[in-house]
Amino acid sequence: MKLAAMKTEEIRALYEEAKEQYEAFEQRGLTLNMARGKPCAKQLDLALGVLEALHARSEFANSNGDDCRNYGVWNGLPEMREIFSHMMGVPADQIILGNNSSLQMMFDCVSQGFTHGFGGCEPWSRQKRLKFLCPSPGYDRHFAITEYFGFEMIPVPMLKTGPDMDLIERLVKEDESVKGCWCVPKYSNPTGVTYSDETVRRFASLKPAAKDFRIFWDNAYSVHDLTDTPETLLNLYEECLKNGTEDLPLFFASTSKISFPGAGVAALAASKGNIEGLHKRFNVQTIGPDKLNQLRHILFLHDIEGVHELMQGHREILEPKFRLVVSTLRESLEELGIARWSDPNGGYFVNLDVMNGCAKRVVSLCKQAGVILTDAGATYPYGLDPNDSNIRIAPSFPPIEELREAMVLLCVCVRMAACEKLLSDRGVSSRETL
Amino acid sequence: MKLAAMKTEEIRALYEEAKEQYEAFEQRGLTLNMARGKPCAKQLDLALGVLEALHARSEFANSNGDDCRNYGVWNGLPEMREIFSHMMGVPADQIILGNNSSLQMMFDCVSQGFTHGFGGCEPWSRQKRLKFLCPSPGYDRHFAITEYFGFEMIPVPMLKTGPDMDLIERLVKEDESVKGCWCVPKYSNPTGVTYSDETVRRFASLKPAAKDFRIFWDNAYSVHDLTDTPETLLNLYEECLKNGTEDLPLFFASTSKISFPGAGVAALAASKGNIEGLHKRFNVQTIGPDKLNQLRHILFLHDIEGVHELMQGHREILEPKFRLVVSTLRESLEELGIARWSDPNGGYFVNLDVMNGCAKRVVSLCKQAGVILTDAGATYPYGLDPNDSNIRIAPSFPPIEELREAMVLLCVCVRMAACEKLLSDRGVSSRETL
Repeated sequence: MKLAAMKTEEIRALYEEAKEQYEAFEQRGLTLNMARGKPCAKQLDLALGVLEALHARSEFANSNGDDCRNYGVWNGLPEMREIFSHMMGVPADQIILGNNSSLQMMFDCVSQGFTHGFGGCEPWSRQKRLKFLCPSPGYDRHFAITEYFGFEMIPVPMLKTGPDMDLIERLVKEDESVKGCWCVPKYSNPTGVTYSDETVRRFASLKPAAKDFRIFWDNAYSVHDLTDTPETLLNLYEECLKNGTEDLPLFFASTSKISFPGAGVAALAASKGNIEGLHKRFNVQTIGPDKLNQLRHILFLHDIEGVHELMQGHREILEPKFRLVVSTLRESLEELGIARWSDPNGGYFVNLDVMNGCAKRVVSLCKQAGVILTDAGATYPYGLDPNDSNIRIAPSFPPIEELREAMVLLCVCVRMAACEKLLSDRGVSSRETL
Repeated sequence: MKLAAMKTEEIRALYEEAKEQYEAFEQRGLTLNMARGKPCAKQLDLALGVLEALHARSEFANSNGDDCRNYGVWNGLPEMREIFSHMMGVPADQIILGNNSSLQMMFDCVSQGFTHGFGGCEPWSRQKRLKFLCPSPGYDRHFAITEYFGFEMIPVPMLKTGPDMDLIERLVKEDESVKGCWCVPKYSNPTGVTYSDETVRRFASLKPAAKDFRIFWDNAYSVHDLTDTPETLLNLYEECLKNGTEDLPLFFASTSKISFPGAGVAALAASKGNIEGLHKRFNVQTIGPDKLNQLRHILFLHDIEGVHELMQGHREILEPKFRLVVSTLRESLEELGIARWSDPNGGYFVNLDVMNGCAKRVVSLCKQAGVILTDAGATYPYGLDPNDSNIRIAPSFPPIEELREAMVLLCVCVRMAACEKLLSDRGVSSRETL
């Protein structure tokens, strides 16, 4: 029976039951952290070969004959760019490798727009009223970058096909102050949605009023499938080539969730025109990225097949965790009709939408009982979830036994918060009994 | 006998002799590169232990108990910051570690001034007519950064005690548009000069008109001594503390010329106030630098004593090369009085000043005979050496036998160019004979 259809007394009884369970959790003093999409130690062990790799080769010459220990090669080793080319769908000679953080490369591209401009336009720092489109719920660290640079961030609803393209098309066409759009196009953070072919095609045929509008295409989970029904993302670069809009997107990827989050290799790809502009910046900024780490990755991964093989190992560790999360939510919440959640085919998150006005309360209850979730609201620009309903669950880091406990607690908190909300809506207090 | 005091016929004879030697070099088809201060392969081999280091430790926990393979620790591992603290003279908790490039951290600080500003002032992007002081000859990659951001670069003469402080004091005091000054304070690139105690104290007592003026203190060669008479640099941070000017300097260093140029660890240090401002930027920009590479360095170097020990190895390789360069210059050029050069106690360069108007010609002659030197003028802002006399010699990379040949050729070219210049000054042509 749906909670909302129950009599007040029934809700009160359910609440008391949940509260008892909650208090039992409190007694146990859990300390679990599910706040971030961090791989667990077992996943990191899959890539230990990265650290062995350099020992298999007594020399340090890259394919150009240069010593990888020394300065040089501003855009990184060609073999590593080749691997990224398969992941990003852009030719290897249009890829620039960074160090360990694709986020840093996104920050740098926003910074480039600010200090030097894109497409021959005035730098953003000399333009007024800058806006950035933020499909929401989305990735908090994306929003933090555009907030840091003072953009007005416009939330765009996430649909099952990706962001609301009607809205995006209208906004970029009408408003020259709209300069960019954040996208996680495959297994989106946190909704798990892969953009539909039509969505990708509509991105490729955008007609922005601003010539310096750029799509920030953060393909963070391109090879991160978790089930037997993996999703495929249409190649945005190829679609853009068909439309002559290849200067619109900037592509980002990394091996953070393939090898090591703290010590992987990041990459940026773009049209020849965009790369030309960025070449100058990168050449002035550094003499080159860490090539030894690229060499380690090349010797360990070999090629894109090596990447897919490694990702099978990640799936074996992650899939049971995702199944556990989804099945716990279903068993505990489905009948009551007080929440909806994603059941993603890949990526790092389960997206949970609780009853409007309940997300902050759920996260706070969990925290009080020792389980840290991502802050409620963090998935929206400025941390403001208009419905206060979205919660991002990151199942990867805790061992499965701890995850099971955390999920039971989370469901208890969702039930408590929903009861409180409904009772309060009916003019009945529940909080006083807590 | 000084060349300038010779009779025209004597000069012509000397020229013909040099030209013959030059032509013999041309026949041999050398291909040597002395353009950049790159360590040689033998030096890089000294740090091979860095690559072994992680195997000595089956776990990857840092001193905080976190897994260094994973995300986190925005400012880097404390043990590595401690090592840099000794090199930079700033407390470890005021140090932020980057990835492999201190140049990138300098670029980022200039970028920060541009997009967000320093000292609570308007960002530089909103101010007009920005200027930057460039002690010259200096480091071309420094100048490339300030050129990229559109600063007007003001050359400041380098004296034996460091930059001309009378000029710097006057310029920063009088002109609010002067926003910064590049410094390589120890074994300066390329002059080899270590700033005198008085120069450091005068930097610490600068009274800039601009509250957002910053000293970019690139202490790239802090432990790079080459002789039994190493030079010491007064601690700028401590001098600033005495004056309450600790917000003036930003300190940079790296292990690029300690471990690996392409895969070392870089660091930025500053006052608590400056670090607070930069903390926000770094936290938005990245989830943290490559901690595995820091761990490798910690396990290999252990502490500052380990650094000094390693640098002895570098000295053993480099000192004979520097001696060879200086003795060849002395033997071939001293008597003629047609050049001056440095005999540095450390660093990576020998600074050569040939007769005014001859540097470009010398570099071009060398190139034609197969020896690539740093472009003439590169050591000055915009590549403009007003006297066309400065040449930067980078002896580290070539094996000593090749260096010997290159130096003989260089001296032949210096003699040729000087003869040409003097003959031309006297209205006698020499070029036609070439």
